[in-house]
Amino acid sequence: MSTSEKDMIVKTATVVGLGLIGGSMALALKERKLAGKVYGADTNSFHQQKALELGLVDFIGDLDEVVALSDLIILAVPVNVATLLLPRILDKIDRQVVMDVGSTKHPICVVAADSNKGNRFVATHPMWGTEFSGPTAAVSGAFANKAVVICDKEKSDHDAVDLVEKIYRALNMHILFMESAAHDVHTAYISHISHISSFALANTVLEKEKEDENIFELASAGFESTVRLAKSNIDTWVTIFQQNKENLLDVLNEHIAQLRKFKSCLEKENYEYLGELIGNANKIKRILK
Amino acid sequence: MSTSEKDMIVKTATVVGLGLIGGSMALALKERKLAGKVYGADTNSFHQQKALELGLVDFIGDLDEVVALSDLIILAVPVNVATLLLPRILDKIDRQVVMDVGSTKHPICVVAADSNKGNRFVATHPMWGTEFSGPTAAVSGAFANKAVVICDKEKSDHDAVDLVEKIYRALNMHILFMESAAHDVHTAYISHISHISSFALANTVLEKEKEDENIFELASAGFESTVRLAKSNIDTWVTIFQQNKENLLDVLNEHIAQLRKFKSCLEKENYEYLGELIGNANKIKRILK
Repeated sequence: MSTSEKDMIVKTATVVGLGLIGGSMALALKERKLAGKVYGADTNSFHQQKALELGLVDFIGDLDEVVALSDLIILAVPVNVATLLLPRILDKIDRQVVMDVGSTKHPICVVAADSNKGNRFVATHPMWGTEFSGPTAAVSGAFANKAVVICDKEKSDHDAVDLVEKIYRALNMHILFMESAAHDVHTAYISHISHISSFALANTVLEKEKEDENIFELASAGFESTVRLAKSNIDTWVTIFQQNKENLLDVLNEHIAQLRKFKSCLEKENYEYLGELIGNANKIKRILK
Repeated sequence: MSTSEKDMIVKTATVVGLGLIGGSMALALKERKLAGKVYGADTNSFHQQKALELGLVDFIGDLDEVVALSDLIILAVPVNVATLLLPRILDKIDRQVVMDVGSTKHPICVVAADSNKGNRFVATHPMWGTEFSGPTAAVSGAFANKAVVICDKEKSDHDAVDLVEKIYRALNMHILFMESAAHDVHTAYISHISHISSFALANTVLEKEKEDENIFELASAGFESTVRLAKSNIDTWVTIFQQNKENLLDVLNEHIAQLRKFKSCLEKENYEYLGELIGNANKIKRILK
């Protein structure tokens, strides 16, 4: 048995949506030889062409065509498109496995539960991304040593979860299991608010500094670090925020309240309390090494 | 003439305050052989010991002693200590040059203007830092290819500015000149608000997630990026915020207003405007490549 056959988990996989995440996933399946063939589907003809040029997939086809040919279908489209496409794909399959890789999990799990083939769906969220988008943003080895969440696994068939676990383990990911609703609460804190904060910081600076472009020569690593996520894709994030609206509003209200504490310290010249606020924030060292 | 003698700009330099910035500056002077000898002063005995152990300085002495021995004195203490120490140091010197490296510039320039030796002072701000602190955080080659601002140079003697420019050019820094008051407005936008945002984000997450430590396994690169500055030193930042209070309050109010726009979009389910806000934030690509 060759290395390639030994590593192979599925004969054919289709990645639907060849952007940052889908493109990186297709590349990972090909590079690690986890799928014999990797097919792609994307409504954007530029993405189709680039994905082929970059060797992310072996073949690009019509959605229904590639789904029919595949053992595993990976949905990597914006989360609002994923919830629309999932019932259509589940209707077309028999014993195949469908998984998604979106940043919100509760809405798609609700959609899956409404389908009589929902048991063939596995809801997942690999905790990796960058501020870039499209197939040209795809990265080799993107998922290694990152966490991935599998949600509501008791609603999926055992063999479907097993297959998805095998894929993620082969990619050296650390698998966590979580209820989809809990996932969406946590990612609001761990990811979505960071994006809102970066977008708002970028707008703050652009609003005030628009007449003085030279000033950006001053921008140092700290600025870049907090603002780089502001480059992130509009469609991806509008739809994530939309699907996780309630949780995100809770976090955003808390974040604005925390910022107001800093504001109040400055207004009242209460530098002792300001030091306490910063000291408390320093506790993040427990988490971020 | 040896390489060492050719590169030497001053025979002896003293760095006052051997933390992240002072330690890195001392190391740079030694490594690039820009000073024959580098002396250090620090009131913290742990810092003294570590700075010697790490070879950041050749000798640690009492402040007045090392100042008297030095051609160039570099103030790298928290900005509130710098404004207190500067008059004392200026009183002790004759033709020597004193420079600072603090993140606020207007308050120290006001202090310098009140001294009859203020012409021997050069106000500078190298645009480099990390979230770590103390002499163990000192980094070799920290300043290369970064910007440095020199403020109110018309108030300093020509030879003093020339000396400081020579040092920064030898460190491969890009020198900008600016009024101290303008510098403090710009750094409020480009640096200080990023720190407030990170501290407040850390507090937001720590507040909500304190009962569920496991969740931090989910934290991905985006979270780390926006929150890493929250590890920054209390004393350094309380005093920067204090000295730049008025500008920072302006920026903080603007930032809270920008966050409220995101909040309002979510509350009103106005996803078209949400997309516009993100699209506007994307314009930061002009600045951050």
